[in-house]
Amino acid sequence: MNFIEERILKDGVIKPGNVLKVDSFLNHQIDVQLLDEIAAEFARRFSGSKITKVLTIETSGVAIACAVAREFGVPVVFAKKSKSINLDGPIYEAEIPSYTHQAINRVIVAAKFLCSDDHILIVDDFLANGYAMQGLISIVESADATVEGLGIVIEKGFQEGGERLRNLGYELHSLAIIDSMDANTGRIEFRE
Amino acid sequence: MNFIEERILKDGVIKPGNVLKVDSFLNHQIDVQLLDEIAAEFARRFSGSKITKVLTIETSGVAIACAVAREFGVPVVFAKKSKSINLDGPIYEAEIPSYTHQAINRVIVAAKFLCSDDHILIVDDFLANGYAMQGLISIVESADATVEGLGIVIEKGFQEGGERLRNLGYELHSLAIIDSMDANTGRIEFRE
Repeated sequence: MNFIEERILKDGVIKPGNVLKVDSFLNHQIDVQLLDEIAAEFARRFSGSKITKVLTIETSGVAIACAVAREFGVPVVFAKKSKSINLDGPIYEAEIPSYTHQAINRVIVAAKFLCSDDHILIVDDFLANGYAMQGLISIVESADATVEGLGIVIEKGFQEGGERLRNLGYELHSLAIIDSMDANTGRIEFRE
Repeated sequence: MNFIEERILKDGVIKPGNVLKVDSFLNHQIDVQLLDEIAAEFARRFSGSKITKVLTIETSGVAIACAVAREFGVPVVFAKKSKSINLDGPIYEAEIPSYTHQAINRVIVAAKFLCSDDHILIVDDFLANGYAMQGLISIVESADATVEGLGIVIEKGFQEGGERLRNLGYELHSLAIIDSMDANTGRIEFRE
Protein backbone atom coordinates (compact mmCIF):
# COMPACT_ATOMS: atom_id res chain seq x y z
CA MET A 1 0.00 0.00 0.00
CA ASN A 2 1.47 3.37 -1.00
CA PHE A 3 1.30 6.71 0.84
CA ILE A 4 -1.83 7.93 -0.98
CA GLU A 5 -3.74 4.71 -0.35
CA GLU A 6 -2.73 4.87 3.31
CA ARG A 7 -3.87 8.47 3.58
CA ILE A 8 -7.22 7.71 1.92
CA LEU A 9 -7.82 4.89 4.42
CA LYS A 10 -6.81 7.16 7.31
CA ASP A 11 -8.60 10.40 6.39
CA GLY A 12 -10.90 9.75 3.43
CA VAL A 13 -14.64 9.57 4.05
CA ILE A 14 -16.97 7.60 1.82
CA LYS A 15 -20.38 9.13 1.18
CA PRO A 16 -23.38 7.61 -0.59
CA GLY A 17 -23.32 7.96 -4.37
CA ASN A 18 -19.69 6.82 -4.68
CA VAL A 19 -18.39 10.10 -3.30
CA LEU A 20 -14.98 9.96 -1.62
CA LYS A 21 -14.29 13.03 0.48
CA VAL A 22 -10.62 13.89 0.78
CA ASP A 23 -11.26 17.47 1.83
CA SER A 24 -9.17 17.20 4.97
CA PHE A 25 -5.93 16.80 3.01
CA LEU A 26 -6.39 17.36 -0.73
CA ASN A 27 -9.15 19.68 -1.90
CA HIS A 28 -10.36 22.01 0.84
CA GLN A 29 -7.75 21.73 3.53
CA ILE A 30 -4.46 20.83 1.84
CA ASP A 31 -1.53 18.96 3.36
CA VAL A 32 1.38 20.63 1.54
CA GLN A 33 3.86 17.96 2.64
CA LEU A 34 1.65 15.40 0.94
CA LEU A 35 1.70 17.57 -2.20
CA ASP A 36 5.49 17.31 -2.22
CA GLU A 37 5.29 13.52 -1.92
CA ILE A 38 2.75 13.40 -4.75
CA ALA A 39 4.96 15.61 -6.89
CA ALA A 40 8.05 13.50 -6.24
CA GLU A 41 6.15 10.36 -7.22
CA PHE A 42 4.91 11.87 -10.49
CA ALA A 43 8.42 13.15 -11.22
CA ARG A 44 9.67 9.58 -10.80
CA ARG A 45 6.93 8.06 -12.96
CA PHE A 46 7.34 10.60 -15.77
CA SER A 47 11.11 10.94 -15.48
CA GLY A 48 11.56 9.67 -19.04
CA SER A 49 9.28 12.33 -20.51
CA LYS A 50 10.24 15.76 -21.72
CA ILE A 51 7.72 18.00 -19.95
CA THR A 52 7.49 21.72 -20.80
CA LYS A 53 4.29 22.58 -18.95
CA VAL A 54 1.89 21.13 -16.40
CA LEU A 55 -1.78 21.67 -17.23
CA THR A 56 -4.70 21.30 -14.84
CA ILE A 57 -8.18 22.63 -14.19
CA GLU A 58 -9.27 24.87 -11.37
CA THR A 59 -9.57 24.57 -8.45
CA SER A 60 -8.29 21.48 -6.72
CA GLY A 61 -5.87 20.60 -9.50
CA VAL A 62 -3.93 23.84 -9.04
CA ALA A 63 -2.18 22.91 -5.80
CA ILE A 64 -1.10 19.54 -7.21
CA ALA A 65 0.00 21.04 -10.51
CA CYS A 66 2.20 23.65 -8.78
CA ALA A 67 3.97 21.00 -6.74
CA VAL A 68 4.52 18.81 -9.81
CA ALA A 69 5.68 21.71 -11.99
CA ARG A 70 8.21 22.61 -9.31
CA GLU A 71 9.76 19.15 -9.67
CA PHE A 72 10.09 19.56 -13.44
CA GLY A 73 11.11 23.23 -13.31
CA VAL A 74 8.34 24.27 -15.70
CA PRO A 75 5.27 26.57 -15.50
CA VAL A 76 1.72 25.59 -14.61
CA VAL A 77 -1.25 26.52 -16.77
CA PHE A 78 -4.69 26.02 -15.30
CA ALA A 79 -7.91 25.94 -17.31
CA LYS A 80 -10.52 28.37 -16.03
CA LYS A 81 -14.11 27.38 -15.54
CA SER A 82 -15.78 30.65 -16.43
CA LYS A 83 -14.93 33.54 -18.65
CA SER A 84 -14.00 36.49 -16.47
CA ILE A 85 -13.85 39.98 -17.93
CA ASN A 86 -10.08 39.78 -17.53
CA LEU A 87 -9.67 37.02 -20.11
CA ASP A 88 -9.38 38.44 -23.61
CA GLY A 89 -7.66 37.35 -26.80
CA PRO A 90 -7.77 33.95 -28.54
CA ILE A 91 -8.70 30.99 -26.37
CA TYR A 92 -8.97 27.22 -26.48
CA GLU A 93 -12.08 25.85 -24.86
CA ALA A 94 -13.88 22.65 -23.97
CA GLU A 95 -17.18 21.77 -22.35
CA ILE A 96 -16.95 19.51 -19.32
CA PRO A 97 -19.94 18.08 -17.46
CA SER A 98 -19.36 18.35 -13.71
CA TYR A 99 -20.80 15.74 -11.40
CA THR A 100 -20.12 17.55 -8.12
CA HIS A 101 -21.60 20.83 -9.30
CA GLN A 102 -24.28 19.25 -11.52
CA ALA A 103 -23.66 21.59 -14.43
CA ILE A 104 -21.70 21.85 -17.66
CA ASN A 105 -18.55 23.90 -17.22
CA ARG A 106 -17.09 25.71 -20.17
CA VAL A 107 -13.37 25.66 -19.52
CA ILE A 108 -10.92 27.99 -21.16
CA VAL A 109 -7.18 28.35 -21.67
CA ALA A 110 -5.72 31.49 -23.23
CA ALA A 111 -4.15 30.40 -26.52
CA LYS A 112 -0.90 32.23 -25.80
CA PHE A 113 -0.05 29.81 -22.98
CA LEU A 114 0.02 26.66 -25.12
CA CYS A 115 2.04 26.23 -28.29
CA SER A 116 2.81 23.41 -30.70
CA ASP A 117 6.26 22.90 -29.13
CA ASP A 118 4.76 22.18 -25.73
CA HIS A 119 4.91 18.74 -24.14
CA ILE A 120 2.17 18.70 -21.56
CA LEU A 121 1.70 16.70 -18.39
CA ILE A 122 -1.95 16.98 -17.36
CA VAL A 123 -2.66 16.45 -13.67
CA ASP A 124 -5.77 16.40 -11.51
CA ASP A 125 -6.91 15.20 -8.13
CA PHE A 126 -9.62 12.78 -9.30
CA LEU A 127 -10.37 10.70 -12.38
CA ALA A 128 -13.85 9.18 -12.59
CA ASN A 129 -15.78 9.40 -15.84
CA GLY A 130 -12.83 11.17 -17.44
CA TYR A 131 -14.72 14.18 -18.77
CA ALA A 132 -12.34 16.73 -17.26
CA MET A 133 -9.30 14.88 -18.63
CA GLN A 134 -10.88 14.59 -22.08
CA GLY A 135 -11.62 18.31 -22.06
CA LEU A 136 -8.04 19.14 -21.12
CA ILE A 137 -6.69 16.73 -23.74
CA SER A 138 -8.85 18.36 -26.40
CA ILE A 139 -7.51 21.77 -25.39
CA VAL A 140 -3.91 20.52 -25.71
CA GLU A 141 -4.73 19.04 -29.11
CA SER A 142 -6.36 22.31 -30.21
CA ALA A 143 -2.96 23.91 -29.62
CA ASP A 144 -1.19 21.14 -31.61
CA ALA A 145 0.80 20.48 -28.46
CA THR A 146 1.74 16.99 -27.26
CA VAL A 147 0.12 15.19 -24.33
CA GLU A 148 3.11 13.55 -22.62
CA GLY A 149 1.12 12.00 -19.84
CA LEU A 150 -1.77 12.13 -17.41
CA GLY A 151 -1.13 12.16 -13.67
CA ILE A 152 -4.03 11.46 -11.32
CA VAL A 153 -3.93 11.25 -7.55
CA ILE A 154 -7.10 9.17 -7.08
CA GLU A 155 -8.79 7.17 -9.84
CA LYS A 156 -12.23 5.69 -9.34
CA GLY A 157 -11.44 2.47 -11.14
CA PHE A 158 -15.07 1.38 -11.14
CA GLN A 159 -15.93 4.25 -13.48
CA GLU A 160 -14.97 4.22 -17.13
CA GLY A 161 -12.60 7.19 -17.47
CA GLY A 162 -9.32 5.43 -16.75
CA GLU A 163 -9.95 2.46 -19.00
CA ARG A 164 -11.04 4.68 -21.89
CA LEU A 165 -7.96 6.90 -21.61
CA ARG A 166 -5.59 3.91 -21.39
CA ASN A 167 -7.31 2.35 -24.42
CA LEU A 168 -6.71 5.58 -26.31
CA GLY A 169 -2.99 5.07 -25.63
CA TYR A 170 -2.37 7.83 -23.11
CA GLU A 171 0.35 7.34 -20.49
CA LEU A 172 -1.92 7.50 -17.47
CA HIS A 173 -0.57 7.12 -13.94
CA SER A 174 -2.96 7.12 -11.02
CA LEU A 175 -1.36 7.02 -7.58
CA ALA A 176 -4.36 5.21 -6.12
CA ILE A 177 -6.98 3.28 -8.06
CA ILE A 178 -10.13 2.45 -6.13
CA ASP A 179 -11.84 -0.68 -7.40
CA SER A 180 -14.73 -0.49 -4.97
CA MET A 181 -15.89 1.43 -1.96
CA ASP A 182 -18.85 1.08 0.33
CA ALA A 183 -20.40 3.99 2.22
CA ASN A 184 -22.12 1.63 4.68
CA THR A 185 -19.10 -0.39 5.77
CA GLY A 186 -16.42 2.24 5.00
CA ARG A 187 -14.50 -0.43 3.12
CA ILE A 188 -12.26 0.59 0.21
CA GLU A 189 -10.53 -1.80 -2.16
CA PHE A 190 -7.54 -0.60 -4.12
CA ARG A 191 -6.29 -2.13 -7.36
CA GLU A 192 -3.02 -4.02 -6.95
CA MET B 1 12.41 47.87 -6.79
CA ASN B 2 11.72 44.33 -5.56
CA PHE B 3 11.26 41.12 -7.57
CA ILE B 4 7.46 41.42 -7.79
CA GLU B 5 7.56 45.02 -8.97
CA GLU B 6 10.16 44.08 -11.56
CA ARG B 7 8.05 41.19 -12.78
CA ILE B 8 4.93 43.37 -13.02
CA LEU B 9 6.83 45.89 -15.14
CA LYS B 10 8.22 43.12 -17.33
CA ASP B 11 5.14 40.93 -17.83
CA GLY B 12 2.09 42.74 -16.43
CA VAL B 13 -0.39 44.26 -18.87
CA ILE B 14 -2.58 47.22 -17.95
CA LYS B 15 -6.11 47.19 -19.35
CA PRO B 16 -8.73 49.93 -19.22
CA GLY B 17 -10.76 50.01 -16.01
CA ASN B 18 -7.70 49.71 -13.75
CA VAL B 19 -7.25 46.05 -14.63
CA LEU B 20 -3.73 44.68 -14.27
CA LYS B 21 -3.28 41.37 -16.04
CA VAL B 22 -0.65 39.13 -14.50
CA ASP B 23 -1.99 36.00 -16.13
CA SER B 24 1.35 35.07 -17.67
CA PHE B 25 2.97 34.42 -14.29
CA LEU B 26 0.46 34.50 -11.41
CA ASN B 27 -3.14 33.58 -12.11
CA HIS B 28 -3.55 31.58 -15.32
CA GLN B 29 -0.05 30.53 -16.22
CA ILE B 30 1.95 30.29 -12.98
CA ASP B 31 5.69 30.70 -12.54
CA VAL B 32 6.34 28.27 -9.70
CA GLN B 33 9.83 29.64 -9.05
CA LEU B 34 8.23 33.03 -8.46
CA LEU B 35 5.82 31.37 -6.02
CA ASP B 36 8.81 30.15 -4.02
CA GLU B 37 10.26 33.67 -3.94
CA ILE B 38 6.90 35.08 -2.85
CA ALA B 39 6.64 32.45 -0.14
CA ALA B 40 10.15 33.12 1.15
CA GLU B 41 9.41 36.83 1.36
CA PHE B 42 6.17 36.29 3.32
CA ALA B 43 7.99 33.86 5.60
CA ARG B 44 10.54 36.59 6.30
CA ARG B 45 7.91 39.28 6.89
CA PHE B 46 5.79 37.10 9.19
CA SER B 47 8.70 35.31 10.86
CA GLY B 48 7.69 36.70 14.26
CA SER B 49 4.16 35.30 14.03
CA LYS B 50 2.95 31.94 15.15
CA ILE B 51 1.07 30.66 12.10
CA THR B 52 -0.95 27.43 12.30
CA LYS B 53 -2.79 27.67 8.97
CA VAL B 54 -2.75 29.63 5.73
CA LEU B 55 -6.19 30.65 4.48
CA THR B 56 -7.04 31.84 0.99
CA ILE B 57 -9.89 31.87 -1.52
CA GLU B 58 -10.12 29.91 -4.73
CA THR B 59 -8.71 30.00 -7.32
CA SER B 60 -5.65 32.14 -7.77
CA GLY B 61 -4.89 32.32 -4.07
CA VAL B 62 -4.44 28.56 -3.82
CA ALA B 63 -1.06 28.38 -5.57
CA ILE B 64 0.33 31.20 -3.44
CA ALA B 65 -1.12 29.77 -0.23
CA CYS B 66 0.45 26.36 -0.85
CA ALA B 67 3.89 27.86 -1.39
CA VAL B 68 3.57 30.01 1.75
CA ALA B 69 2.20 27.14 3.87
CA ARG B 70 5.18 25.07 2.79
CA GLU B 71 7.51 27.67 4.31
CA PHE B 72 5.65 27.58 7.62
CA GLY B 73 5.09 23.81 7.62
CA VAL B 74 1.33 24.20 8.11
CA PRO B 75 -1.79 23.25 6.10
CA VAL B 76 -3.67 25.41 3.62
CA VAL B 77 -7.41 25.94 3.82
CA PHE B 78 -9.09 27.55 0.85
CA ALA B 79 -12.55 29.09 0.90
CA LYS B 80 -14.82 27.71 -1.80
CA LYS B 81 -16.93 29.96 -3.97
CA SER B 82 -19.92 27.70 -4.45
CA LYS B 83 -21.54 24.98 -2.46
CA SER B 84 -20.81 21.68 -4.14
CA ILE B 85 -22.79 18.60 -3.27
CA ASN B 86 -19.63 17.27 -1.61
CA LEU B 87 -19.59 19.93 1.11
CA ASP B 88 -21.71 18.92 4.08
CA GLY B 89 -21.63 19.62 7.80
CA PRO B 90 -21.33 22.96 9.60
CA ILE B 91 -19.78 25.80 7.62
CA TYR B 92 -18.59 29.36 8.00
CA GLU B 93 -19.60 31.63 5.18
CA ALA B 94 -19.30 35.16 3.84
CA GLU B 95 -20.65 37.07 0.86
CA ILE B 96 -18.04 38.69 -1.32
CA PRO B 97 -18.82 40.95 -4.29
CA SER B 98 -16.54 40.04 -7.21
CA TYR B 99 -15.46 42.74 -9.62
CA THR B 100 -13.97 40.46 -12.28
CA HIS B 101 -16.96 38.16 -12.40
CA GLN B 102 -19.55 40.88 -11.71
CA ALA B 103 -21.45 38.83 -9.18
CA ILE B 104 -21.71 38.18 -5.47
CA ASN B 105 -19.88 35.04 -4.43
CA ARG B 106 -20.97 33.16 -1.38
CA VAL B 107 -17.78 31.70 0.01
CA ILE B 108 -17.64 28.81 2.39
CA VAL B 109 -15.18 27.09 4.71
CA ALA B 110 -16.07 23.84 6.44
CA ALA B 111 -16.16 24.59 10.17
CA LYS B 112 -14.00 21.58 11.02
CA PHE B 113 -10.96 23.16 9.35
CA LEU B 114 -10.81 26.27 11.54
CA CYS B 115 -10.75 26.24 15.33
CA SER B 116 -10.30 28.79 18.09
CA ASP B 117 -6.66 27.76 18.59
CA ASP B 118 -5.76 28.61 15.02
CA HIS B 119 -3.50 31.53 14.13
CA ILE B 120 -4.26 32.33 10.53
CA LEU B 121 -2.21 33.98 7.82
CA ILE B 122 -4.59 35.02 5.03
CA VAL B 123 -3.01 35.37 1.59
CA ASP B 124 -4.27 36.36 -1.84
CA ASP B 125 -2.93 37.52 -5.18
CA PHE B 126 -4.68 40.91 -5.31
CA LEU B 127 -6.04 43.44 -2.84
CA ALA B 128 -8.21 46.21 -4.30
CA ASN B 129 -11.47 47.12 -2.56
CA GLY B 130 -10.70 44.51 0.12
CA TYR B 131 -14.01 42.66 -0.07
CA ALA B 132 -12.38 39.23 -0.40
CA MET B 133 -10.06 39.91 2.55
CA GLN B 134 -12.94 41.17 4.69
CA GLY B 135 -14.92 38.06 3.87
CA LEU B 136 -12.02 35.80 4.83
CA ILE B 137 -11.41 37.78 8.03
CA SER B 138 -15.07 37.44 8.99
CA ILE B 139 -14.82 33.68 8.43
CA VAL B 140 -11.75 33.47 10.71
CA GLU B 141 -13.59 35.52 13.34
CA SER B 142 -16.65 33.28 13.05
CA ALA B 143 -14.36 30.44 14.12
CA ASP B 144 -12.96 32.52 17.04
CA ALA B 145 -9.56 32.01 15.47
CA THR B 146 -6.87 34.70 15.34
CA VAL B 147 -5.91 36.63 12.21
CA GLU B 148 -2.12 36.80 12.49
CA GLY B 149 -1.60 38.67 9.28
CA LEU B 150 -2.61 39.39 5.70
CA GLY B 151 -0.19 38.70 2.86
CA ILE B 152 -0.93 40.19 -0.55
CA VAL B 153 1.16 39.92 -3.68
CA ILE B 154 -0.21 43.01 -5.48
CA GLU B 155 -2.15 45.79 -3.79
CA LYS B 156 -3.97 48.40 -5.81
CA GLY B 157 -3.03 51.26 -3.51
CA PHE B 158 -5.40 53.66 -5.29
CA GLN B 159 -8.37 51.61 -4.06
CA GLU B 160 -9.49 51.70 -0.47
CA GLY B 161 -9.02 48.09 0.73
CA GLY B 162 -5.45 48.36 1.99
CA GLU B 163 -5.97 51.58 3.92
CA ARG B 164 -9.14 50.29 5.55
CA LEU B 165 -7.50 47.03 6.65
CA ARG B 166 -4.44 48.85 8.04
CA ASN B 167 -6.71 51.27 9.90
CA LEU B 168 -8.47 48.29 11.44
CA GLY B 169 -5.09 47.25 12.84
CA TYR B 170 -4.36 44.20 10.72
CA GLU B 171 -0.73 43.30 9.97
CA LEU B 172 -0.97 43.70 6.19
CA HIS B 173 2.03 43.12 3.96
CA SER B 174 1.71 43.73 0.23
CA LEU B 175 4.76 42.81 -1.84
CA ALA B 176 3.91 45.45 -4.44
CA ILE B 177 1.64 48.45 -3.92
CA ILE B 178 0.55 50.20 -7.10
CA ASP B 179 -0.21 53.88 -6.56
CA SER B 180 -1.25 54.53 -10.13
CA MET B 181 -1.32 52.88 -13.50
CA ASP B 182 -2.27 54.09 -16.93
CA ALA B 183 -3.60 51.80 -19.67
CA ASN B 184 -2.75 54.34 -22.37
CA THR B 185 0.89 54.90 -21.52
CA GLY B 186 1.55 51.57 -19.79
CA ARG B 187 3.07 53.50 -16.90
CA ILE B 188 2.90 52.02 -13.37
CA GLU B 189 3.93 53.83 -10.21
CA PHE B 190 4.74 51.80 -7.13
CA ARG B 191 4.61 53.06 -3.56
CA GLU B 192 8.07 53.50 -2.02
